Amino acid sequence: MKVDLNCDLGEAFGNYSFGGDKDIIPLITSANIACGFHAGDQHVMNQTITLAKKHNIGIGAHPGLPDLQGFGRRNMDITPKEIYDIVVYQLGSLYGFCKIHDVSMNHVKPHGALYQMGARDKAIAQAIAQAVYDFDKSLVFVGLSNTLLISEAKSIGLTTASEVFADRRYEDDGQLVSRKDADALITDTNEAIEQVINMVKSQKVITKNNNTIDIEADTICVHGDGAHALEFVSQIRERLTKEGISISRLEG
Amino acid sequence: MKVDLNCDLGEAFGNYSFGGDKDIIPLITSANIACGFHAGDQHVMNQTITLAKKHNIGIGAHPGLPDLQGFGRRNMDITPKEIYDIVVYQLGSLYGFCKIHDVSMNHVKPHGALYQMGARDKAIAQAIAQAVYDFDKSLVFVGLSNTLLISEAKSIGLTTASEVFADRRYEDDGQLVSRKDADALITDTNEAIEQVINMVKSQKVITKNNNTIDIEADTICVHGDGAHALEFVSQIRERLTKEGISISRLEG
Amino acid sequence: MKVDLNCDLGEAFGNYSFGGDKDIIPLITSANIACGFHAGDQHVMNQTITLAKKHNIGIGAHPGLPDLQGFGRRNMDITPKEIYDIVVYQLGSLYGFCKIHDVSMNHVKPHGALYQMGARDKAIAQAIAQAVYDFDKSLVFVGLSNTLLISEAKSIGLTTASEVFADRRYEDDGQLVSRKDADALITDTNEAIEQVINMVKSQKVITKNNNTIDIEADTICVHGDGAHALEFVSQIRERLTKEGISISRLEG
Amino acid sequence: MKVDLNCDLGEAFGNYSFGGDKDIIPLITSANIACGFHAGDQHVMNQTITLAKKHNIGIGAHPGLPDLQGFGRRNMDITPKEIYDIVVYQLGSLYGFCKIHDVSMNHVKPHGALYQMGARDKAIAQAIAQAVYDFDKSLVFVGLSNTLLISEAKSIGLTTASEVFADRRYEDDGQLVSRKDADALITDTNEAIEQVINMVKSQKVITKNNNTIDIEADTICVHGDGAHALEFVSQIRERLTKEGISISRLEG
Repeated sequence: MKVDLNCDLGEAFGNYSFGGDKDIIPLITSANIACGFHAGDQHVMNQTITLAKKHNIGIGAHPGLPDLQGFGRRNMDITPKEIYDIVVYQLGSLYGFCKIHDVSMNHVKPHGALYQMGARDKAIAQAIAQAVYDFDKSLVFVGLSNTLLISEAKSIGLTTASEVFADRRYEDDGQLVSRKDADALITDTNEAIEQVINMVKSQKVITKNNNTIDIEADTICVHGDGAHALEFVSQIRERLTKEGISISRLEG
Repeated sequence: MKVDLNCDLGEAFGNYSFGGDKDIIPLITSANIACGFHAGDQHVMNQTITLAKKHNIGIGAHPGLPDLQGFGRRNMDITPKEIYDIVVYQLGSLYGFCKIHDVSMNHVKPHGALYQMGARDKAIAQAIAQAVYDFDKSLVFVGLSNTLLISEAKSIGLTTASEVFADRRYEDDGQLVSRKDADALITDTNEAIEQVINMVKSQKVITKNNNTIDIEADTICVHGDGAHALEFVSQIRERLTKEGISISRLEG
Repeated sequence: MKVDLNCDLGEAFGNYSFGGDKDIIPLITSANIACGFHAGDQHVMNQTITLAKKHNIGIGAHPGLPDLQGFGRRNMDITPKEIYDIVVYQLGSLYGFCKIHDVSMNHVKPHGALYQMGARDKAIAQAIAQAVYDFDKSLVFVGLSNTLLISEAKSIGLTTASEVFADRRYEDDGQLVSRKDADALITDTNEAIEQVINMVKSQKVITKNNNTIDIEADTICVHGDGAHALEFVSQIRERLTKEGISISRLEG
Repeated sequence: MKVDLNCDLGEAFGNYSFGGDKDIIPLITSANIACGFHAGDQHVMNQTITLAKKHNIGIGAHPGLPDLQGFGRRNMDITPKEIYDIVVYQLGSLYGFCKIHDVSMNHVKPHGALYQMGARDKAIAQAIAQAVYDFDKSLVFVGLSNTLLISEAKSIGLTTASEVFADRRYEDDGQLVSRKDADALITDTNEAIEQVINMVKSQKVITKNNNTIDIEADTICVHGDGAHALEFVSQIRERLTKEGISISRLEG
C-alpha cells in the first residue's frame, strides 16, 4: 500500500516570494510546478526544478489560466481549443527546464480554476487531457478524485492519479463540499488525519451526511506555507508510516 | 552552392493579426516562430506550426524579450542569467507545439533587441547560445553574420547559420549600418538583389565605404508583409535559381 | 429629434494596428476609447484623444476586462468589488490624457464581456455604475438598451444613454438575439437602416418574432473597419438627416 | 526647520503581498503609491489610498516602467515620448482612486529604473516632469537631490522636493555611490542617522571621499519592511524631534 504527497510549488513571481518551497520539499514526493501563467516565472521555474531534482522528488507541470492577477483562480469563459493550447504551451515551457537539468517530467496537475472547470466540464476535461496525451502520453495525470478530470483522462488513455484532500469535507457524490459552505473544511487536525488515512487504506470516505462512499486516493494534496502546514504534513507522514503505507512518488 | 531563406512568422497576438504568413510561407525555407514574449500566443504558435509543417519548411524558435508592447524591440537591462532562462522557457514552449504536431525544431534565431544585444555583448551572446545548447545542441543557431552571436555559438559547440540582409548596408567591420543613418537601407531593388546574390556566391559584401569585406551568408532574412515584400522575395528566388544556387533549409 | 453615433476606437496596441479610426471619426459623434486593459495602450490613448479632440467629438472611456489576449471578450468570474476597481482605474487613466489635452470626458461605455456581464447581472451593473458615479457623476453612462446596465445606472443617479444596434435582431424581451443564433444579424443593409431609423424615430423595434416592442435609442453603435462599414455609416447618416433627425453627441 | 518622510507603498500585486504598509504608515508623512506598472494593482491602490487617507498622510503617485516581473528596476530603452505617456497614464489611474476617496494627490516620485534614468538623462527627466506638469502643475515633484530630475522639474515650473537617503553614501558630485560599490551602504545605524540629521539641518553631506558638499534635503526615503526598518524610522523620527525639526508632509 502506498500513496504520493504532492504540493504546488514555484509560485513566486519576479520580486514576489511565495510559499515555503524549501521547507516542504523534503516532506513530499511530487512537486507541481507553476509554469508562468497563474504564477511562477522562468527564473522561479529553473530554481524550483533545481530544488526538486536535488531532493529527487517527482516533477510535474502545474498549468493554469493566463491570469496572474487572479492567481489562476478566476474562472474564464475560455474555449476547449484555447485550453488545449495553453496547456501544451505550459507543458513545453516546463519541459525546457527539465531538459536543461536532465530530469524527466513525471506528471501534470491543472491549477485552480482550470482544475475546477475540468472537474465539472467534460469538454474542458477532454481538452486538458488531450493536450497532456499529445504532448507526452507517459505523463501521469493528476485530478480531483471522482470527477471528469479522472474519467476523461482515463478514457483518452492516460495513467491517472486521483487526488484527495485531508482537510476538506466530501459530498455524497464524491465532490468536495464547496468552500462557500460553513462545513467545507475539517479544522480538527486529528479528524483530518483520520480522514486521509482512511481514504488511503480503505479507499472510502465518510461524507458530510455521514454516508460512506468510494474514493480513489492515489495522492494527497498538501501545502507548505506556514509552520502549521509543515507540522500537519509531518503528522500525516508519521501516521502513514505507522500504518505501513509507503510514501512514494506517482508512477506512470 | 545553397542558401536558406528565413522569415519571422507567427507574430499575431490574440485579436491582432500581423504579417502575411500564408503568402510568404511557400516562398521560404525556414520559419522563425514567435514564442509569446515579444509577439505570438499559444493559438498563433499552434496555427503557425501547422502551416509550416504543411509546407515542409524548417521550424525554428524566435525567442524575444518579455515586452509585447514594445514588440521585443526595446533593449532591456536584463542579466545574462535572466536571458538564459527566458530563452529556455521559449524554446520549451515552442517545442510543446512541435511535439503535438510530431515535427522537429530545426533552428533558433533570437528576435529584435535580444538579437541586437547578443550581437554586441559577449555575455549575452553566450547566455543565449548556452540556453540553446543545453536545451538541444543539435539546433542550428542563426545570428547576424560577423558578430558575437555567431562566434560565441560556435565556441560553445553549436552549428551556426550566418544571416545576411539584402536591403541593409554594411559597415567596414561587417556590422549593419545603423537604421539611424540615412544610408542604412538599400532602396533600389536591383541593388539589393545584386548585394545578396554577391554575398551568397562570393561570401563578400561591398561596404558603404566601397570596401569589399568577407561575410558568411548561410541564410537570407526576408519579410512577408505587403505585395512589395512578396515580389522582392520572388525576385531573389528567381535570381538565386538562375545563378544555380539552391534554396534549401538550414541543416544541423 | 436627435441621436448619437458612437464607435469603439483606440483599440490598437503596441506594434499592432487595429480598426480604421481616422476614417470613421469624421462620421461619428462619440468615441469610446480603450483604456489599456482589453486593448489600447498609453500611446494609442494619447493619439486617439488627439484625433477625437481635433474632430470635436464626444470623448468617452471604454473600460474592459484585464484580458488583452481575449480582447476583453471572455467572461471572467470576477467579483463586483474587483470590477468596481478596474473601472475606476481605467476611468482615471483616460482622464489623464483628457487632462493633458484639456478636454472633458463625456461618457463611459463598458466593453465586450464587461458590457454583456453588466447587462445581465445586477451586482455587476451596479458595480460599474457606482464606479462611474463615484469617479464623476456627470458622465453619461452608455449601456445596452432595455438592460440592467441602464436601469441600475439610472437608479444610482447617472444620466444614461441607451444603445441600439442597426444590424442586430432583437428578442421579444428587448435583448439582442444571441450571436450563436443563425438569425442574430441583419445582413440586408436596407433592412438594418430601416430598423435603426425606426428605433430612433418611434423608439420601437420589431423583434425576430415580428412583435413590436419599446426600445430607447439614444445612441447607435457603429463600426469603422473596412470600406463596407464606412459606407454603411454614411448611409445611416444620410437617412437620419433626411428624416430630420439631428446627429449630435450625448449630453449629460 | 522641517522635513518629510516618504515611503514606497502599495507594492503588493494580486495574490502576492509585499512590504509592511500598515506598520510604516503611522511613521511617515508621504506615501508613494505604485500604479500597476512595476507593482500594485487596482485593488491594492484602492486599499492603499484608503489607508493613507485614514492616517492623513500625503498621497503621491509612484509611476514605474511597464515591467512587473522586473519590479520596474530594469532599465529599458524607451523613448521620452513613451515615458511621457506612461507617466500620464499612471498619474491618471491613481487620480481615479483619489477621486472616489475625495482626497488630493499631493506629489509624484518616479520609481526604480525610471527614477535612475531620469536622474541621469536630461530628455527623460524632462519627459517625466512635463507629464507631471501637464497633468497637474500643483503636484510636488520628488527626485534624487542634486540630479537632473530636480533641475529639469524646476525649470519646467514644478515645485520640487529633493530626496535624500539616510543609509546611502554620496559621491563628491552629489550622486549616490553605486550599489555595485562595496561602500555604497552605511550599515551603522548611528552613522546613518547622523548623516540624515546633518543633511536636513545643514543641507550638507560628507562624501565617501570625506569632502563636504551641498545637498538639498526636503524628504527622506524610508522603508517599511521588517522590524529593523521600522525601528530605524522610529529612531530617525526621535532624533529629528530632538533636534527641533518638524516632520511634515510636502507642500506644493
